[in-house]
Amino acid sequence: MSGNTLGLLFTVTTFGESHGPAIGAVVDGCPPGMALSEADLQTDLDRRKPGTSRHVTQRKEEDKVEILSGVFEGKTTGTPIALLIRNTDQRSQDYSDILQTFRPGHADYAYHYKYGLRDPRGGGRSSARLTAPVVAAAAIAKKWLHHQYGTEIFGYMSQLGEHVIPFEDEKQIENNAFFAPNAKIIPELEAYMDSLRKAGDSCGARIEVRARNVPMGLGEPLFDKLDADIAHVMMGINAVKGVEIGSGFQSVVQKGSEHGDEMHPDGYASNNSGGTLGGISSGQDLRVSIAIKPTSSILSPKQSVDLEGKPMTVQTKGRHDPCVGIRATPIAEAMLALVLMDHALRHRAQCGDVKVSVRAVPAARPGAK
Amino acid sequence: MSGNTLGLLFTVTTFGESHGPAIGAVVDGCPPGMALSEADLQTDLDRRKPGTSRHVTQRKEEDKVEILSGVFEGKTTGTPIALLIRNTDQRSQDYSDILQTFRPGHADYAYHYKYGLRDPRGGGRSSARLTAPVVAAAAIAKKWLHHQYGTEIFGYMSQLGEHVIPFEDEKQIENNAFFAPNAKIIPELEAYMDSLRKAGDSCGARIEVRARNVPMGLGEPLFDKLDADIAHVMMGINAVKGVEIGSGFQSVVQKGSEHGDEMHPDGYASNNSGGTLGGISSGQDLRVSIAIKPTSSILSPKQSVDLEGKPMTVQTKGRHDPCVGIRATPIAEAMLALVLMDHALRHRAQCGDVKVSVRAVPAARPGAK
Amino acid sequence: MSGNTLGLLFTVTTFGESHGPAIGAVVDGCPPGMALSEADLQTDLDRRKPGTSRHVTQRKEEDKVEILSGVFEGKTTGTPIALLIRNTDQRSQDYSDILQTFRPGHADYAYHYKYGLRDPRGGGRSSARLTAPVVAAAAIAKKWLHHQYGTEIFGYMSQLGEHVIPFEDEKQIENNAFFAPNAKIIPELEAYMDSLRKAGDSCGARIEVRARNVPMGLGEPLFDKLDADIAHVMMGINAVKGVEIGSGFQSVVQKGSEHGDEMHPDGYASNNSGGTLGGISSGQDLRVSIAIKPTSSILSPKQSVDLEGKPMTVQTKGRHDPCVGIRATPIAEAMLALVLMDHALRHRAQCGDVKVSVRAVPAARPGAK
Amino acid sequence: MSGNTLGLLFTVTTFGESHGPAIGAVVDGCPPGMALSEADLQTDLDRRKPGTSRHVTQRKEEDKVEILSGVFEGKTTGTPIALLIRNTDQRSQDYSDILQTFRPGHADYAYHYKYGLRDPRGGGRSSARLTAPVVAAAAIAKKWLHHQYGTEIFGYMSQLGEHVIPFEDEKQIENNAFFAPNAKIIPELEAYMDSLRKAGDSCGARIEVRARNVPMGLGEPLFDKLDADIAHVMMGINAVKGVEIGSGFQSVVQKGSEHGDEMHPDGYASNNSGGTLGGISSGQDLRVSIAIKPTSSILSPKQSVDLEGKPMTVQTKGRHDPCVGIRATPIAEAMLALVLMDHALRHRAQCGDVKVSVRAVPAARPGAK
Repeated sequence: MSGNTLGLLFTVTTFGESHGPAIGAVVDGCPPGMALSEADLQTDLDRRKPGTSRHVTQRKEEDKVEILSGVFEGKTTGTPIALLIRNTDQRSQDYSDILQTFRPGHADYAYHYKYGLRDPRGGGRSSARLTAPVVAAAAIAKKWLHHQYGTEIFGYMSQLGEHVIPFEDEKQIENNAFFAPNAKIIPELEAYMDSLRKAGDSCGARIEVRARNVPMGLGEPLFDKLDADIAHVMMGINAVKGVEIGSGFQSVVQKGSEHGDEMHPDGYASNNSGGTLGGISSGQDLRVSIAIKPTSSILSPKQSVDLEGKPMTVQTKGRHDPCVGIRATPIAEAMLALVLMDHALRHRAQCGDVKVSVRAVPAARPGAK
Repeated sequence: MSGNTLGLLFTVTTFGESHGPAIGAVVDGCPPGMALSEADLQTDLDRRKPGTSRHVTQRKEEDKVEILSGVFEGKTTGTPIALLIRNTDQRSQDYSDILQTFRPGHADYAYHYKYGLRDPRGGGRSSARLTAPVVAAAAIAKKWLHHQYGTEIFGYMSQLGEHVIPFEDEKQIENNAFFAPNAKIIPELEAYMDSLRKAGDSCGARIEVRARNVPMGLGEPLFDKLDADIAHVMMGINAVKGVEIGSGFQSVVQKGSEHGDEMHPDGYASNNSGGTLGGISSGQDLRVSIAIKPTSSILSPKQSVDLEGKPMTVQTKGRHDPCVGIRATPIAEAMLALVLMDHALRHRAQCGDVKVSVRAVPAARPGAK
Repeated sequence: MSGNTLGLLFTVTTFGESHGPAIGAVVDGCPPGMALSEADLQTDLDRRKPGTSRHVTQRKEEDKVEILSGVFEGKTTGTPIALLIRNTDQRSQDYSDILQTFRPGHADYAYHYKYGLRDPRGGGRSSARLTAPVVAAAAIAKKWLHHQYGTEIFGYMSQLGEHVIPFEDEKQIENNAFFAPNAKIIPELEAYMDSLRKAGDSCGARIEVRARNVPMGLGEPLFDKLDADIAHVMMGINAVKGVEIGSGFQSVVQKGSEHGDEMHPDGYASNNSGGTLGGISSGQDLRVSIAIKPTSSILSPKQSVDLEGKPMTVQTKGRHDPCVGIRATPIAEAMLALVLMDHALRHRAQCGDVKVSVRAVPAARPGAK
Repeated sequence: MSGNTLGLLFTVTTFGESHGPAIGAVVDGCPPGMALSEADLQTDLDRRKPGTSRHVTQRKEEDKVEILSGVFEGKTTGTPIALLIRNTDQRSQDYSDILQTFRPGHADYAYHYKYGLRDPRGGGRSSARLTAPVVAAAAIAKKWLHHQYGTEIFGYMSQLGEHVIPFEDEKQIENNAFFAPNAKIIPELEAYMDSLRKAGDSCGARIEVRARNVPMGLGEPLFDKLDADIAHVMMGINAVKGVEIGSGFQSVVQKGSEHGDEMHPDGYASNNSGGTLGGISSGQDLRVSIAIKPTSSILSPKQSVDLEGKPMTVQTKGRHDPCVGIRATPIAEAMLALVLMDHALRHRAQCGDVKVSVRAVPAARPGAK
């Protein structure tokens, strides 16, 4: 398994640099016979796209995906599905200064040390642009999971900087640039973003991802537990510094008497577990929360070193997000979809003919959590 | 890659159930020529052992490890190293009641649904006992990393329930049952544990894990980043509900102007990154924090269902930890060691002959972080 | 995936050296709920055992296997199944001379160069003894395949040195030490072996392995085709120098008009393909043939070099097989079983819910091949 | 690891169907800093191309490869290298008849049964066209191995049908359409091919692949031995039915006294082993031989069944090779290169700092083999 391949059975191998000719992914192991077209993938790609609001990077990429293989007469054949997205709006000159220096908080320095060289344009391979092929690949998984189990995956922003965003209405998530489940708070968030942009600074964010109708039994203990694999993909998203499942760090101060989710014939009484028990999906909704750090590409100068280690100042110019967390929601959803897909196939492989011998407890009691 | 194998090049495959004949691990890919004996492994095993204080499970297992292969005349041969630990103190009768029911918060229900059956004795494969072979295997990694790079890995408890434990002195960590870096606070913690035990309840904990002298360049973007793999192994530890790297969830409320660690010729000015940039080790100390939930095995009754889904009450008896976090420190250290080991070999494989072309920035400025 | 783990979903990780404390294997990914006990494994282990006839190594190992995990109340739990075989009859003194030299044709030299050291006793990890855990692990696979699909796997010797063994009667295979399907030829073979032993020389052998009732659709093109994976495991058996599927090297001189197996509603007219089409099982019997080289451990002296590269003579003493091919049949069967098992799970993972849309052609027409 | 990914560290993931928009590969794990351009890849692609002589498929594909990623300013960056080849000469109408039937000896039937559907155009994913991306990817490996170790890989045809081709002159290999190391025999081979074409029939072939200056110590026993992995990739090539290493099936009739390659300070006295000992490269030249079956796409009618299993006749029309073995040489070289590359990195990972403790024996004595 290479570092650029995710998954064991439903695998996604990505390629491409921010300013190279193209970026893309190869999806292998997709069950055959499922209807699939570019339209299925474009929806999530459009949700992720830069240039959709004044609060995000002003790079105008069409992000139009082309399916090169693995589909015949509109159905998946079971052979690898290659997805290609041509880069069209690369403005290399924005980054010429950093060829000789390293931007603090960015991958530049680490890539250069590891490989002996790096493609500095637009962050090269470490650019957030590389989430596009992953989101496209995950759309395939989302579709299959939905058809197979009725699984629904959705995410939203629950905090922007110090601004906590109360959950009001799931339907509001797609109605604003923040993926916030709350219409009333939008003017406050926009004002905050405008002030950050003027100051040339940035802030962090907290993103929640949920899944309903998750089939039970997913997860491969002891090392490939479902929650462990979820943490793996989430922490791997650019700029993520923390991952929680269920009660997360709240669990530290909870007592056992309050944390354990009691089971009743009509459903679980609470969901502190976040959807897994012993690393296996329990049927409860999956609840994941991630912490996004503020982007290091701010317009105020920062101390750094050059190739020989001599001190210098770095000042970023060009196109930057005052908060990369604003575009993170579709990416976090995509990662969750990919993990669930791979685990669905892994579970089917080993336990496909197991006669389920216990009655499933519904996800939640009426009125719970 | 099976769910019971960790790693790509330095692999650890574990086996065993809590009440079976034996538990153990097979370590493959260890570099040859390193001195190794049971004594190297026993130290960390003893730190982890139950029955070492009144605050932990009163099961008396010797946990004596036997090396069955992979070592000749005291040196590793490069062939698989099999480690065996015989179970000696299994008291099955403590668990007879739960054969027909599921303990809320435990893996019982999920295992039974997934596999159609389960070994219920002592939690079977989901028991925390299964951390013993992992700790033994990791001792091999710790030794190699130390010889090769001078890497030091250590962990400690930073919070017990609501009791925050200020970091006073690294040398205190091995002097108390809590792995707390603070001698003054121990009576307070012990009183708290005694009260929990009397009440039949439990609490959570927060554990920190650190690594110094981490070689630069470890991590395989985009999917096997070092921080992503760290999150994977940490979240996979029994009872863990959250993982943070560096500033973790604090990053949400930080500004970019304060979060980005500035680089100076004499070292980094701060360590909000926690030791990775773009998923690759930067030379800064690795800083990881995990949240341990309160154990669900408490002595007060809980609502649950039986095999047919009918409601019933479960009351746990027998030997239990009021806080599983007390024994988590050696386990978290072990997991970090295994990830660093695997990544050291992965980096050597691809970049072994890369001429390092930038000057390394020291981990921290004098007086920083 | 380490070099000592075979398979992707049904994985077998082996450990142990010829003269170490024990040898064994960990089997992961076994479907749960199957009845399993040591008795299931011992049959094939006994078929493989040394000391069962005067024609094979006179080392007396009981080869008694112990199941350490993964089975509860007589059924597989879906957790790893560890198998342990203690070494009891190690006579190290037989090998003292070769500590400083390398035996031509053996792995000694290559292991020493690769790892910088080696366990020379009995060939260390390269000893054929290490086939025992594999045979035990494969017995699990054989059982599952038989229950699930009625699959039967059997092998036999088709040539010993220059002596071609005509196929007379499948039932004779278990009646002689050669696994020969022919009773009449046994005295000839025994006389041949006796003459080789007197001369201190050795010969090669050709082994056939067959499988009936192989489910269709197994194989993962383009790189993990069923025939490719079969070749992989067969060539990996000690002393194997060639692998053929179906017509094998005969195909070179066949015409297309005779090679292609025609399909009729009542079955295939021939079986030149050997059971796979495009790397996927076709329902025809699997036909595999392997070439075993003569053992290099002969009693006449051979030219070699010592650790410094100076010329010297090596003369093997001690216990040796005049033909290692005599014990190869159960090992070749085991390898085929492991490949089929892994592929059965892989196929189920990706295509588990595919509605078979063509009518299966029976394996062979009445009277064919 | 998916079925369309080859390798553990230097991985090649291919995609594409014969008549889809494009075919290609993603190469991951390539060491950084190596000069690379399309020109490096085009040479081997041109050797493989259809339409280069009257004896091979008359499909005119340019096979022009484009590098989409992983190279910056002419050097590999260590990030994935994506290779794209657009399909330009697809004549679907040649294959319309077989949509409803299965061609005997082809993958059609097996693919349809496994996946429930297939892309029948030009053989879909099972077409030999899919060797193009593999050959391009392998050119990267060939280049690195040559720079690093001076490794040279070359193959040639040693037999065409019943016509044995004596080895006369290595320099002749690139001078004829057969990759035959013999100028004198060419008219005989051409006449033979012409007669086959007239008869509408086909023949098999035997191809040899050799490697010189193979670094010692490559191979990961017990399951990923070098010879085992070579067998895996060779048997996976379309139309291959047999693989031999060194003496191959000749070993069956050899005595131990003649088979074992004696070692002298000035080199090995023979090369029956074919380059590996105990599955690890010994420094001797690698000698591999493969059997290619006659193509099933012949112009005379064959008996088959349709989708419902009813009998019918299939008669292939269109563009076909009377011997697919004619184009196999570059493909077999490519497969060997990929295996050696992956193993070079695997060996470096585990044993990178091993002090070689024995003197290397030269590959062959002057005048040997």
